[in-house]
Amino acid sequence: MKPSIPQGTRDFSPAEVRKRQYILGILKEIFEEYGFLPLETPAMENLTTLTGKYGEEGDRLIFKILNNGLHDKKEEAKSKLNEEWAKMLEKPYNTPKVTERALRYDLTIPFARFVVMHQHELAFPFRRYQMQPVWRADRPQKGRYREFWQCDADVVGSASLINEAELLCIYRSAFHKMKLPGVVVKVNSRKLLAGLAEICNAPDKMMDITIALDKLDKIGWEGVTKELQQRNIEQSGIDTIEKIISVTGSNEEKLRVLEQLMGTSNSALAGITELRDTLKYHDALKSNEWKSELQVDISLARGLNYYTGVIVEVVSNAVKMGSIGGGGRYDNLTGLFGLKNMSGVGVSFGIDRIYDVLDELKLFPENLDITTQVLLVNFGKEDELYSLKVMQQLRTEGISAEIYPDNIKFDKQMKYANKRSIPYVIIIGEQERAEQKVSLKNFVTGEQQVLSIVDAIDILKGT
Amino acid sequence: MKPSIPQGTRDFSPAEVRKRQYILGILKEIFEEYGFLPLETPAMENLTTLTGKYGEEGDRLIFKILNNGLHDKKEEAKSKLNEEWAKMLEKPYNTPKVTERALRYDLTIPFARFVVMHQHELAFPFRRYQMQPVWRADRPQKGRYREFWQCDADVVGSASLINEAELLCIYRSAFHKMKLPGVVVKVNSRKLLAGLAEICNAPDKMMDITIALDKLDKIGWEGVTKELQQRNIEQSGIDTIEKIISVTGSNEEKLRVLEQLMGTSNSALAGITELRDTLKYHDALKSNEWKSELQVDISLARGLNYYTGVIVEVVSNAVKMGSIGGGGRYDNLTGLFGLKNMSGVGVSFGIDRIYDVLDELKLFPENLDITTQVLLVNFGKEDELYSLKVMQQLRTEGISAEIYPDNIKFDKQMKYANKRSIPYVIIIGEQERAEQKVSLKNFVTGEQQVLSIVDAIDILKGT
Repeated sequence: MKPSIPQGTRDFSPAEVRKRQYILGILKEIFEEYGFLPLETPAMENLTTLTGKYGEEGDRLIFKILNNGLHDKKEEAKSKLNEEWAKMLEKPYNTPKVTERALRYDLTIPFARFVVMHQHELAFPFRRYQMQPVWRADRPQKGRYREFWQCDADVVGSASLINEAELLCIYRSAFHKMKLPGVVVKVNSRKLLAGLAEICNAPDKMMDITIALDKLDKIGWEGVTKELQQRNIEQSGIDTIEKIISVTGSNEEKLRVLEQLMGTSNSALAGITELRDTLKYHDALKSNEWKSELQVDISLARGLNYYTGVIVEVVSNAVKMGSIGGGGRYDNLTGLFGLKNMSGVGVSFGIDRIYDVLDELKLFPENLDITTQVLLVNFGKEDELYSLKVMQQLRTEGISAEIYPDNIKFDKQMKYANKRSIPYVIIIGEQERAEQKVSLKNFVTGEQQVLSIVDAIDILKGT
Repeated sequence: MKPSIPQGTRDFSPAEVRKRQYILGILKEIFEEYGFLPLETPAMENLTTLTGKYGEEGDRLIFKILNNGLHDKKEEAKSKLNEEWAKMLEKPYNTPKVTERALRYDLTIPFARFVVMHQHELAFPFRRYQMQPVWRADRPQKGRYREFWQCDADVVGSASLINEAELLCIYRSAFHKMKLPGVVVKVNSRKLLAGLAEICNAPDKMMDITIALDKLDKIGWEGVTKELQQRNIEQSGIDTIEKIISVTGSNEEKLRVLEQLMGTSNSALAGITELRDTLKYHDALKSNEWKSELQVDISLARGLNYYTGVIVEVVSNAVKMGSIGGGGRYDNLTGLFGLKNMSGVGVSFGIDRIYDVLDELKLFPENLDITTQVLLVNFGKEDELYSLKVMQQLRTEGISAEIYPDNIKFDKQMKYANKRSIPYVIIIGEQERAEQKVSLKNFVTGEQQVLSIVDAIDILKGT
């Protein structure tokens, strides 16, 4: 039997774990600098917590866990089980006798569920970050997995636009630390999009317009025009939309023109005000070191329909790749679980895509895969014990060290060091042992010198 | 609808995440110091990878994932599905039309599966550590969960006892760093247990004797005697066992007596030799700082039956609690997946129990829940922007800071700081802003002073 893993899942080799930990480590540091707290929720949620939250397509893609102990049931229970099984074959949910648990589908719904369950213990505004895998039964393809990591930061319990500004800064700070070039953080407001629908004389068609606009990058303005026509937007409306999405200039210039073009819509004016305030807070908070751009982009729509205020999306122009992050304000997320009036705003980092971008641009630090600094060569019984003592001294000094555990041919031990990218090798023969010294070989330069242990430690610590 | 989570699963609040991260962080640091590499495997494995590996009871406790898209099947496929469903109700496995994936049950089998799949890329000996959750459909009870973390370190591809010695040192070093008192690391060898069966005239009853001995802590010698009698061990054999498990003294003294008592068994002598060599390597490697004890304990049996050589278990006498770690040598783990002659040895840390012990003994660092160093009070529009600029300066200096995002009553903001255990508060009113200063209040002592931003940063960095 040739072992394999399920389609759409991945093993993470040591080198891959390190690269991902590099990304997660940067994010964690920034989140904590900004006062966000870590949260972890179980991989399994009650199926009832998840169903109905992600649309019909989402419900189908949720991985459901078979109840345990089905085979232990009594006969009469089995007929009920068979009934539910038949139902399950017709429609993929609400069959608690067959399945009542499911794998986490995203981090947002478990977060909302947690906030509602712990509302009386939490200090609000509650700012949490969460970095965990999620599972979706999507058809696997390049860059799309059935198990993948999400990384979210949300603030719940405050309507202040300072939160939006902070999240924009988190994006910019994070990608600055990753040295990712060409980053553009796009912001828009759902209120502006609602206003757009109003002035197009189609106030009930915000979602239609939004969905069409969302495709601008992919299908161009011509394609969007067709979609808008299909969705029965009047030609005058389409002309207005074209004028509005063509506005250029600085963010403030854009907002000024939008104010003129959309001044008849109260919703649009509210959106413009919230973008202005967000930018004002952002400008006070930002660091001048950050090279990314912050761009008001009225064509930004975002797929999810629970956003109600500012929305945001991040791309890098340095690579051909979709967005590497996105988020926005949602006014009523916890309402799904019965807790009203809890405004929230959050952002998400697309860990897998960020990984691919950094990899493609060779932006991971070079020595990420070097952890063991030195390999002690094993020459067998007589020198082994002395080598172990030397190794203990190295480790006490914080130097990561290993001894080749078996006394095999020198060449083979060197091959191991090479394959593992271990930069130094310590060779201890009879003479070194007699003099209480070591031979330290730099595996990269080939240079080798006989040193006291203290001197060897100095060199190894300097690397 | 009142939200809840599945029985036996847990949310980890920020304080709990930090405590667990403290434990995992110590382990990670030590593993890397010892040259172990991180590995992560998917939560879902093919069901065929897992079934038959954990005994019949284990097979029942594996969480199985329902295949997706069952409701989309054609009619003829559905009759096959109904057949398999009926089979499933009789016996809980081998129904690939209904379920072909399952949740990881431990970290050892996925590790073996990974090694076999990647045998041609890996540098052997391959030393990996893995810290991930596993899932078991056990009946939940105090300290037993359906989702819990495991943390394993294994070396595969080397038969050297240096590996055993290193793993013993990893245990001692880890619990030293956690400052856990009363730690005893017990070692034994499966070969000694086999020898014990031989000299009891019951060479085929090693497992019976092992299972009985494993209960010594719980049921005492009297109980063990009964069990041995039930398992048809002769009285002379039982007397020998009593004599052998009563041996006291230093490890070397114990081994010397065992050598005399068990000298007729080659297996026992081999076990004694491997324990002696392991101890010799351990003594060369160990640090004198470690306060834990390393004890040869012939009554140590370990439940799992794939061990073949040295076995180890860790307890703390400071609390009433089972073992907090265990492991051993297995000669043929990857053989399950077709790769022969791959000896391995590994240890596991019981993260949940270690967590509970550290919590009970109040051994977690006190300031683990302090991450935000300072809260900037929000007095509204005029001072807000200045506060944001000050906050950016603090963060640039690596000080974790947050502003209360809304301009609510001062008292309420203080209540928030208190609930969040934030040690400092910065108050910026009109006067501070005019003088480009801040008022820094120590939330613990109540002391408050007006300072330049630079001076405030100095104080905050000193904390």
